[in-house]
Amino acid sequence: MKNEKKISTPVLRRLPKYYRHLEELSRNGIEKISSKDLSKLINVTASQIRQDLNCFGGFGQQGYGYHVQTLRDNLAEILGVTKRYTAIIVGVGHLGQALANHTTLPRSGVDLIALFDVSPDVVGTEVAGLTVKNISEVNRFCLENHVDVAVLTLPKSEALPVATVLANAGVKGFWNFTNTELSFSGMNVSVENVYMGDSLMKLCYDVQDS
Amino acid sequence: MKNEKKISTPVLRRLPKYYRHLEELSRNGIEKISSKDLSKLINVTASQIRQDLNCFGGFGQQGYGYHVQTLRDNLAEILGVTKRYTAIIVGVGHLGQALANHTTLPRSGVDLIALFDVSPDVVGTEVAGLTVKNISEVNRFCLENHVDVAVLTLPKSEALPVATVLANAGVKGFWNFTNTELSFSGMNVSVENVYMGDSLMKLCYDVQDS
Repeated sequence: MKNEKKISTPVLRRLPKYYRHLEELSRNGIEKISSKDLSKLINVTASQIRQDLNCFGGFGQQGYGYHVQTLRDNLAEILGVTKRYTAIIVGVGHLGQALANHTTLPRSGVDLIALFDVSPDVVGTEVAGLTVKNISEVNRFCLENHVDVAVLTLPKSEALPVATVLANAGVKGFWNFTNTELSFSGMNVSVENVYMGDSLMKLCYDVQDS
Repeated sequence: MKNEKKISTPVLRRLPKYYRHLEELSRNGIEKISSKDLSKLINVTASQIRQDLNCFGGFGQQGYGYHVQTLRDNLAEILGVTKRYTAIIVGVGHLGQALANHTTLPRSGVDLIALFDVSPDVVGTEVAGLTVKNISEVNRFCLENHVDVAVLTLPKSEALPVATVLANAGVKGFWNFTNTELSFSGMNVSVENVYMGDSLMKLCYDVQDS
């Protein structure tokens, strides 16, 4: 479905949120929802929702609203959640371990296939059912195995050199928690730089005078 | 400065990103930057940047651009980063420990003052220089101490009951990692629901056909 029409980045950023809510509705046995109720739930205007979903054909029926399961399944297909992706985690500190054990990876269709660290205290230990490998093996591992996504939870100073090795070894996507902006111009590589502090600052702004 | 003009949520969501980049520029000794270069760096159009900064007076000079340090300081003041906030972490698993030890809290002006967990394995241990307290003490602690923000890194099923206790004990902000949407209608409470999976799904979409 992806290739029928290119989805713009702002739309694409909203789709996981739609998907998340529809998954929850579906889990709770809700069969249909009006665009008005969906709008309230998701906190996006009904007209925005219609516009977004029209980008790939729309799924609503006038006077009925949306069929939850159908919309959920279609979004899953569009987002590629139904496909399987492979991921490695590089940097097995607390955040790396948290992500290794979290439902976020499997729920996004991602299989964790290896973890790497530099510390002798961590290498060889078991995390999320996998034995942590030495970072010195990461290049060969990525050349020999298909790795879609590298989760970067290593120190900031190591982010660029390690990511460069991985990109050259065929890794196509970086989920980057190192608080350093990565970009690969001229390479077919995607990056999501995650800055958790941004939402904390917004929160502090909201509470500052309350 | 906040009270001069109410800042809209979309603008407010972009400010921490501006701040982050300006902090980096400032750290690297860059004194001024043109709106064009700032635009490229931040990946927001120059006109959007001008519009956003004009909301509170603008800080650029025609033909000069922005003075990095001044703009950084002004944004810090607007965002309230220069104030100090107090935070507790509820749920000291891997994610809770990662956040306790991360630079995100101090860089956002937030002092961690206590951690709480339910597990006897964790209660009494030391994390980020603090002894983890029993969750049974959290209500009293919040009544007796000023707590601006509660970081929720506990299981999803506990999120709502615990957050309700905390809100009633005076906690004003929730940084919520539990993958369950919290909202408090009728209470003067702010929530940032963090869904890390959203950016992972976007990333998987980007890599799926590459």
